Amino acid sequence: MALTTSPPGGGISYSRITMADHMDGKAKIRPVYTGICGTDRAEIAGHLPFAYNPTGQNYMVIGHEAVCQVIDIGENNSRIRPGDYVIPIVRRRGTCINCRIGRQDNCSDADNDITEAGIRGADGFNSEYFFDSPENLIKVNDSSMVMLSTLTEPAKNVMKAFEIFNKLSARSIFESEDSTYTSKNCLIIGTGSEAFLYAFMAREYGMTVYLTNRHRLLEEKMRIIEGIHCLFYNYLEENGPDKIDLLIDTSGDPAAVMKFVGKLNYNGIAILFGTNGAAPDSQLTGNDLNYIIEHNIAVSGSVDGSKKHYMDAIGYLEKWKYSSSGIINKLITGIYKPEDTEIFRAKPPEEIKSIIKW
Amino acid sequence: MALTTSPPGGGISYSRITMADHMDGKAKIRPVYTGICGTDRAEIAGHLPFAYNPTGQNYMVIGHEAVCQVIDIGENNSRIRPGDYVIPIVRRRGTCINCRIGRQDNCSDADNDITEAGIRGADGFNSEYFFDSPENLIKVNDSSMVMLSTLTEPAKNVMKAFEIFNKLSARSIFESEDSTYTSKNCLIIGTGSEAFLYAFMAREYGMTVYLTNRHRLLEEKMRIIEGIHCLFYNYLEENGPDKIDLLIDTSGDPAAVMKFVGKLNYNGIAILFGTNGAAPDSQLTGNDLNYIIEHNIAVSGSVDGSKKHYMDAIGYLEKWKYSSSGIINKLITGIYKPEDTEIFRAKPPEEIKSIIKW
Amino acid sequence: MALTTSPPGGGISYSRITMADHMDGKAKIRPVYTGICGTDRAEIAGHLPFAYNPTGQNYMVIGHEAVCQVIDIGENNSRIRPGDYVIPIVRRRGTCINCRIGRQDNCSDADNDITEAGIRGADGFNSEYFFDSPENLIKVNDSSMVMLSTLTEPAKNVMKAFEIFNKLSARSIFESEDSTYTSKNCLIIGTGSEAFLYAFMAREYGMTVYLTNRHRLLEEKMRIIEGIHCLFYNYLEENGPDKIDLLIDTSGDPAAVMKFVGKLNYNGIAILFGTNGAAPDSQLTGNDLNYIIEHNIAVSGSVDGSKKHYMDAIGYLEKWKYSSSGIINKLITGIYKPEDTEIFRAKPPEEIKSIIKW
Amino acid sequence: MALTTSPPGGGISYSRITMADHMDGKAKIRPVYTGICGTDRAEIAGHLPFAYNPTGQNYMVIGHEAVCQVIDIGENNSRIRPGDYVIPIVRRRGTCINCRIGRQDNCSDADNDITEAGIRGADGFNSEYFFDSPENLIKVNDSSMVMLSTLTEPAKNVMKAFEIFNKLSARSIFESEDSTYTSKNCLIIGTGSEAFLYAFMAREYGMTVYLTNRHRLLEEKMRIIEGIHCLFYNYLEENGPDKIDLLIDTSGDPAAVMKFVGKLNYNGIAILFGTNGAAPDSQLTGNDLNYIIEHNIAVSGSVDGSKKHYMDAIGYLEKWKYSSSGIINKLITGIYKPEDTEIFRAKPPEEIKSIIKW
Repeated sequence: MALTTSPPGGGISYSRITMADHMDGKAKIRPVYTGICGTDRAEIAGHLPFAYNPTGQNYMVIGHEAVCQVIDIGENNSRIRPGDYVIPIVRRRGTCINCRIGRQDNCSDADNDITEAGIRGADGFNSEYFFDSPENLIKVNDSSMVMLSTLTEPAKNVMKAFEIFNKLSARSIFESEDSTYTSKNCLIIGTGSEAFLYAFMAREYGMTVYLTNRHRLLEEKMRIIEGIHCLFYNYLEENGPDKIDLLIDTSGDPAAVMKFVGKLNYNGIAILFGTNGAAPDSQLTGNDLNYIIEHNIAVSGSVDGSKKHYMDAIGYLEKWKYSSSGIINKLITGIYKPEDTEIFRAKPPEEIKSIIKW
Repeated sequence: MALTTSPPGGGISYSRITMADHMDGKAKIRPVYTGICGTDRAEIAGHLPFAYNPTGQNYMVIGHEAVCQVIDIGENNSRIRPGDYVIPIVRRRGTCINCRIGRQDNCSDADNDITEAGIRGADGFNSEYFFDSPENLIKVNDSSMVMLSTLTEPAKNVMKAFEIFNKLSARSIFESEDSTYTSKNCLIIGTGSEAFLYAFMAREYGMTVYLTNRHRLLEEKMRIIEGIHCLFYNYLEENGPDKIDLLIDTSGDPAAVMKFVGKLNYNGIAILFGTNGAAPDSQLTGNDLNYIIEHNIAVSGSVDGSKKHYMDAIGYLEKWKYSSSGIINKLITGIYKPEDTEIFRAKPPEEIKSIIKW
Repeated sequence: MALTTSPPGGGISYSRITMADHMDGKAKIRPVYTGICGTDRAEIAGHLPFAYNPTGQNYMVIGHEAVCQVIDIGENNSRIRPGDYVIPIVRRRGTCINCRIGRQDNCSDADNDITEAGIRGADGFNSEYFFDSPENLIKVNDSSMVMLSTLTEPAKNVMKAFEIFNKLSARSIFESEDSTYTSKNCLIIGTGSEAFLYAFMAREYGMTVYLTNRHRLLEEKMRIIEGIHCLFYNYLEENGPDKIDLLIDTSGDPAAVMKFVGKLNYNGIAILFGTNGAAPDSQLTGNDLNYIIEHNIAVSGSVDGSKKHYMDAIGYLEKWKYSSSGIINKLITGIYKPEDTEIFRAKPPEEIKSIIKW
Repeated sequence: MALTTSPPGGGISYSRITMADHMDGKAKIRPVYTGICGTDRAEIAGHLPFAYNPTGQNYMVIGHEAVCQVIDIGENNSRIRPGDYVIPIVRRRGTCINCRIGRQDNCSDADNDITEAGIRGADGFNSEYFFDSPENLIKVNDSSMVMLSTLTEPAKNVMKAFEIFNKLSARSIFESEDSTYTSKNCLIIGTGSEAFLYAFMAREYGMTVYLTNRHRLLEEKMRIIEGIHCLFYNYLEENGPDKIDLLIDTSGDPAAVMKFVGKLNYNGIAILFGTNGAAPDSQLTGNDLNYIIEHNIAVSGSVDGSKKHYMDAIGYLEKWKYSSSGIINKLITGIYKPEDTEIFRAKPPEEIKSIIKW
């Protein structure tokens, strides 16, 4: 049984599919939990024009966020064994110069060179069991981390984004005069699961972290934000910090991005992460360009992450499990069954991350 | 005698001013050539709101591009001697963390921390003679370089911009698989003096270099572009390269910037340099953000340059003098006298760089 | 009461000293735990020629590893409050270009520009109470971390060393073709407290980690090494890994360093950290130089760390407390009273870190 | 006709060899000038144990420094044409992670993965004509540069070494507080051709440059050193600078290296480049390690260079041709014929670079 869609048209079905029955040097694995994200919903709604079925299939197993258990891995794999928990990676290496060094997140020809499980030309992870090459599996060492590890895939994006932040901030002295980031402001646009994971990471740097959105938050999200010592404001009603050093956008909304780029400090950095097909257009003015120039501002898109970032993500999730007194667990707001396909169609109010228990 | 204006109102006058008559540890220097740039003209036209007179003066000597000769430098300066040619720097150090390490081009508080000769709160260089601290003077070692050194100030901006390019390109493998940039395309928007200097530098990297504008070029500029093995096209009439790896904007025009950001390759980089108060607004769409994200594109403003960049600029100008068979000299399209104040009001057709011989 | 010595002569005394009785904008703090390290013992034994008393004192309070509690911090400090736990930093900023940006660990003139608490010209932390500027105090947010935080000072050295590793490894592609460090070998020479902290950190990178020494280890250390999934071998009796990617020396022994530099892989990195006044000389041959050159090997010393590294150290200690199932606590092998001055004279067999409870 | 040797035994012969007679997609090229270096002489003397003949040959054409002219390049090569001057590269790509991105100079498995023309398993360039893939050829654009381009191969080593310097100096603020290197001292051990090329490059950074050796220099070398504004001293007789910021060794002599590492400033950098099989052993002491650690010193080997560095080398040689008023030409101290095989056996007194005119 598997959850399938058929891009670019969309749809969702929980049904029996034809499964491979031999391993070909691969590992046989079964999902334990899978996460649901905006990309899945966009695909199902038929709003993801770049998604396409695997060659020779008229459907695609959906889902690229998963923690799985190894059923069988054949002989002679010293690193991973049956029973181990693993995270399968989304994007699979092509042959471009960046893929060659294991950085398919930086693929120089992503339109042609790579596939992405559950998105572009490769089956995803919502399937009773499936086969994958050991090189695509990241081991979860701590078995108490199984459910939380469902957040590894979204968290690996955060790791990649902060790698970019580290590179961009090397343009000048970004840190304060005590060598730390404690007097720096990070503003995160959006209050979804990625926004929260960005907030956790910006707190690791010691920054003062603001989340913002154009509406108020219900109680539960506010409690998480307070619990991790961050701040929230509704930017339609309130003024946030005067100056921002690091801006992270998870909204994909051009108007919000430009509003806050205009509050970046000298040598400030904006990381664009969120995409939103439905966002209305905004203005880009000569003054915007002038502001970016005079302030030595850098803006960078960040997509995906490499195996390195998956490993870092697991490490930080493990840390946050303890350091946040369990608040990190509250990011998982609902656990569903595979047959609850409605969860792919409608986002529950105040969802942070919905997951499926297989 | 000096050329003065009075920002933010503007105006231009060639008249006698009160000169300091003692050195206070400074060097006494006289301009040999000064360059005229868009900032000067904007100031005179009253279009530079952030410009302001030096404290206690109701005027400001204009001009921040100059090559000067040292008249007197007092005792015990081992590095610079009377008769030497020097370039005075524009921006003067404040106390912020970046100024402290000599990187006032990255000043963390440029609204308050620094002054800029001929622009913000400090006299410029169009004055019969003036006094400046040795630490603000860059020596020109090769006396055959005097006139060409007038381009040092604009060229130092190019050096800083490529420093940023080097940092941003470290996000991934940017070079081709032979370790060089020879298969990379650089597109430069604009065909003024800065655009040409950017073109020289991109050629140093071995890139294929395109300049573009929304009109055709007269013969003389076309000959320079061909002479340095670059290409030009009028983007309103012709299609340029399909994909760009490095985009440099000297136009300050949001529509042009967004048009070409949309042609950046994976891991592409855009350097914003040109400002233009009069540029019409353009659109920024959700698709634009999506494109930047999916392609791991980085966009960075770049302003000013440090002493390091002035020194590099002199070195490259010297190199280009020889390697371009003298074509670099053609960037200086007109030599005027200080009393020709009209040159500050109207840009001659096909001007690249107009200079004043003192 | 305080533990004092008088360098360069040495000695140790637990006795009453004259205490300042006003705060002068400083915080009044008391040590909760202090750590004892080789530097302290060398000082007391009169083997640290560069140590010297604070100006105007004929003694120096010893000790630079401490976790303290704030007794009083005056008004208006929003960041630190009475009752908070803090780590005081060792090295205090001078005026050189690196100190100016809060990187006194990279002081360009450490002979003259800085002081070091308990080592060079400034009192250390083994004193009933003392006064320190808030800028020298790093807050420990998690009160369950108090005792373990005594390791912050030694761990901050590890953070700085890995910062250097990150810079040096940017000379080439150091990671494996899956973007991770999982197929890389790290060898650590030595089995003292710093060696163990380096091992924890190298495991964070996912490397295979070997510790080595020229003797066997007793049971307790072996259990820790196994517990954190590292390996140990006695290099006088056994062969370790054929090739090393990252070598970290905590021994200060030239013969051991050169033995293992000769096993570094192409693009390998050696971090020198340990010093040892009594180590016998070794050889440096033309073949050694040739090996370093042909293999593009980089060797770097690493001393001290900045506030940034103290903060990172606290973060990682907190992580390791949980991820190692408490094994990190076993690094603290003995708790003493201030009057147990003998602990400064003789290192107990199998000591990893001895601390004093105040 | 070709100059051949047979490593590891050695010998030199100018004789007829069997030449390939078809191109196989390669370019047919003929050497115009070839350079002779210490590696050639060591090979001929039988002192290069790692050199070996190409597979299936009992000889190897010697020589890896050459400027050549293209005789035929087949069809459809847009970049290089018959008549063009080109530099063939020495080291040919393997399949390791660094070779894959065109950085065979950083080959992760150089014992097995790469070949080197005229050194390891591949014919060199002292052959009437030969065939090479276009990807191994670097074009010389300026035909007045032909003879001087013989220095491209040695100069590319300098470019790679300064790339490493740039990476290592990012550990701290290395520049002076005016952002430049003008107050930094560079000391170069040795006075051969590589030493001179390093001196030219260190002058590009604006450093004060010292060359040193353990004997006096004859007139001609002294004139070159003065001409490029460097300083020389015999370190057996005179004291050089108190403190060094950048040390470059071209001698391969451990005693000289350690003598001057001990004079490195805080955050100082040593680049090891020269190898010398006959150098006597020296001491490495605990104090040496301590000095390296306390001063945050980094030492790195540097071997070979990539295509990027060959291109940079040509650019700088072109620059130096003009900026040094022709002094760069004096580095070529003798021009020989292929039949003058004696020049491979004995180094003329005061040789800097001997070349062969084909």
